[in-house]
Amino acid sequence: MSALTRRLFLGGAAATAAGVATPGSAAAGTSADVVVIGAGLAGLTAAREISRAGRSVVVLEARDRVGGRVLGRPLGTGDFTELGAEFIGPTQDRIAALAAELGVPTYRTYDTGDYIYYRNGQRSRYSSSGPLGPIPPDPTGAIEAGIAIQLLNQQAAEVPVDAPWRAENAEEWDSQTFHTWIQQHAQTDGGRFLLRLATRAIFSAEPRDLSLLYVLAYIAQAGNEDHPGDLTRLVSTTGGAQMYRFVGGSQRIPERLAAALGDRVRLGAPVRHISQEPGGVRVISDAGTVTAQRVVVAVPPPLAARISYDPALPAARDQLTQRFPMGSVIKVVATYRRPFWRADGLAGQAVSDTGPAQVTFDNTPHDGVPGALMGFIEADDARALDAADTARIRRETLRNFADYFGPQALDPTGFILSRWDNDIWSRGCPVAFAPPGLLLGYGPAIREPVGRIHWAGTETSTYWTGYMDGAVRSGHRAAREVLTAL
Amino acid sequence: MSALTRRLFLGGAAATAAGVATPGSAAAGTSADVVVIGAGLAGLTAAREISRAGRSVVVLEARDRVGGRVLGRPLGTGDFTELGAEFIGPTQDRIAALAAELGVPTYRTYDTGDYIYYRNGQRSRYSSSGPLGPIPPDPTGAIEAGIAIQLLNQQAAEVPVDAPWRAENAEEWDSQTFHTWIQQHAQTDGGRFLLRLATRAIFSAEPRDLSLLYVLAYIAQAGNEDHPGDLTRLVSTTGGAQMYRFVGGSQRIPERLAAALGDRVRLGAPVRHISQEPGGVRVISDAGTVTAQRVVVAVPPPLAARISYDPALPAARDQLTQRFPMGSVIKVVATYRRPFWRADGLAGQAVSDTGPAQVTFDNTPHDGVPGALMGFIEADDARALDAADTARIRRETLRNFADYFGPQALDPTGFILSRWDNDIWSRGCPVAFAPPGLLLGYGPAIREPVGRIHWAGTETSTYWTGYMDGAVRSGHRAAREVLTAL
Repeated sequence: MSALTRRLFLGGAAATAAGVATPGSAAAGTSADVVVIGAGLAGLTAAREISRAGRSVVVLEARDRVGGRVLGRPLGTGDFTELGAEFIGPTQDRIAALAAELGVPTYRTYDTGDYIYYRNGQRSRYSSSGPLGPIPPDPTGAIEAGIAIQLLNQQAAEVPVDAPWRAENAEEWDSQTFHTWIQQHAQTDGGRFLLRLATRAIFSAEPRDLSLLYVLAYIAQAGNEDHPGDLTRLVSTTGGAQMYRFVGGSQRIPERLAAALGDRVRLGAPVRHISQEPGGVRVISDAGTVTAQRVVVAVPPPLAARISYDPALPAARDQLTQRFPMGSVIKVVATYRRPFWRADGLAGQAVSDTGPAQVTFDNTPHDGVPGALMGFIEADDARALDAADTARIRRETLRNFADYFGPQALDPTGFILSRWDNDIWSRGCPVAFAPPGLLLGYGPAIREPVGRIHWAGTETSTYWTGYMDGAVRSGHRAAREVLTAL
Repeated sequence: MSALTRRLFLGGAAATAAGVATPGSAAAGTSADVVVIGAGLAGLTAAREISRAGRSVVVLEARDRVGGRVLGRPLGTGDFTELGAEFIGPTQDRIAALAAELGVPTYRTYDTGDYIYYRNGQRSRYSSSGPLGPIPPDPTGAIEAGIAIQLLNQQAAEVPVDAPWRAENAEEWDSQTFHTWIQQHAQTDGGRFLLRLATRAIFSAEPRDLSLLYVLAYIAQAGNEDHPGDLTRLVSTTGGAQMYRFVGGSQRIPERLAAALGDRVRLGAPVRHISQEPGGVRVISDAGTVTAQRVVVAVPPPLAARISYDPALPAARDQLTQRFPMGSVIKVVATYRRPFWRADGLAGQAVSDTGPAQVTFDNTPHDGVPGALMGFIEADDARALDAADTARIRRETLRNFADYFGPQALDPTGFILSRWDNDIWSRGCPVAFAPPGLLLGYGPAIREPVGRIHWAGTETSTYWTGYMDGAVRSGHRAAREVLTAL
């Protein structure tokens, strides 16, 4: 940011004199104890805690809405469906407590009847509720995947959630991809297929993209202070991270947080520059400048890199953000007069080797109308469709749904989707992931404050990173850091 | 970039009316056929070709100097030493031709006498010029590394230089780290040590950071249209990429390119925003706005990501730049009254397991005065010192030099260094490298134009990516693209 740019931005009066309107309430000269960048769950939670502690706060949000990676869309029935983060499950205490405080109840994700297993063009049904849990109808593959999951859980138990790079085997594990691990520990097509599918469903990345150490850390973090992380919890509906949904949609949580913060939240205010000065920070957005004592940056790491910083960030933090990319995902929801698959004894869940939608859920809202099928298009499949038109995605996805649930799926009453890779304020979802070498080379920089700059966002959480619970936890932690420092 | 920002930037008259000086010759309203972003070798070469073709061009450079990753520093004798890209070798035709045209001659890198092998605190000498080339005094390790190099060359021969993701085994090779490959193909400590050292010397990254496919592509690209790539060429002095240096320093090349371009090159002009509009492009820098028909972005991929684009870039290009990080390197040069090691029959080159400076060169300038030892601090060693003070780096490096070349090394007449990770307009060196999954997921986006935006820089070259030759090649290619489109 040059002196010119700074003067142009800071010269509110001059800009007005030149005939440019000073936007809204974010006029030059706004100040607060803390400025929070990003009105997702992490930023809003931090702002709430800071405000509750009696400190003044301003939240600058690039989009014209709050919620970040939480996004609701109306179904035309008064209810909403989730096009971003959606589920909540056991051990996700922080998001559960927040939702309860805000009066947003949960309900069970529909998980009754059979699942669909679709491989090599063959469709099979299997029970969602066997005594050993759902077992895909490929016994060899399922056993192999089951053994792999146990081994991964054992290795994950050796990974400190707050410092994965300190695990005894950190160097070995961060030096290989998860693909390499799968090739060594699963020999059958079925086992490898299931492990790859689970990887894509969790990370929206391919096993080749991911560090083994990062996968183990993510598993270790899928729990809380009382319950160690567990890969089964990550992939399960009943008993796992997909067990519950929010009545009215998850977007009600950030909306209520934002409503309580009122005009402390400024929309349409992408931040371009942060200066740390002797007395505080100066944050320059497209909607004006805010000065504060501290700043919480609560946006994904690759986007935090696109803010300019003065003084420049330490190399460790800068290089971290050069190699901490977002997953690739498109989420689609097709709606139907009713959830026709339920009458056929189907849970609406499929695992498939045929893209683009290889994993599906029954996304019908709480009151049962309309029926909704949700599909995840992930990693290579998402990348292949990032430049495709919506009609093609709709056509290909509905064909998947028909293969899994019958020809009625071809005739939806509605079809909506979110294309996170194309969304310029997320540029991917659900979470930034670590390729090999990131945690060993840069791990501490994920969370370590830089002077008056604090980092929040689900990527910075020590539990449930990648989930709404992690975002809320990170907001609490960042607020604690800031309040201690003020 | 908001409407406000745009209007503030574009409103040159308004800004002046408000008392803000319009900087230099880059006033609002500057236009040209082409604007080039970055005055490194790639950008300057492109600008030269465009200008020679009779088209108007403006080069916007963020720094107050030209050269990018080419950087000369005075030695106090009238001569210069290189703190960035330095060497040139066989098959690097394009940089050779350019230097010849500009009247910058080359000379042989000093490579006479013995090399030093320093392991586990033991110093050994070995010949730099045996009949089989230099063979480190660890026969088992040297043989193992030699066999590995042959195998890597064979695999590299299967990689198309312009599309590594189309190699028959691309999926297998891009799914593993180079570390995994080394573990499988070298069993001795010595072999693994030499392969890791070579990796660090080439990429300033650890084997764990790198995709095997990327390493193979880099080897394949270490040649030209007539001579296939060769790993031996990458690591060798005589006969390899370190064979020659430029009289007066490599910085003379960008300096002469810039001098010929005159006031077409604007310094202190970091670019913040590129708009593609129906009639052309609009490029907004801290030193004003330039409109043009086409733009060539000739900065490293992670820094290209920090420009804002309207319309937004396709997801493939954006996500590419989230995972194409720079290597980590500090380059140090200690000067002495004379190159005392030469009298002792030493070439000034060491390979060592003791950091921070594990690889050294005789960096004495053409006229032999002063003596200069150069050390590379790379990857983990660089990261460990990125936040250290210069005194510590000096102390630790001189200790290395003394271990390799004798106690005289402790008493230099001068000590200079470049800390590329901390340099905000490079944020690492020598080149952006690919972790696993990048080439398969995003390879074509490295070079593919986006509307009126063209990409240059050594990362985009199909030969000698990572080298000055690759930068020059990329500048030629980008200029051809632009000139065809105009």
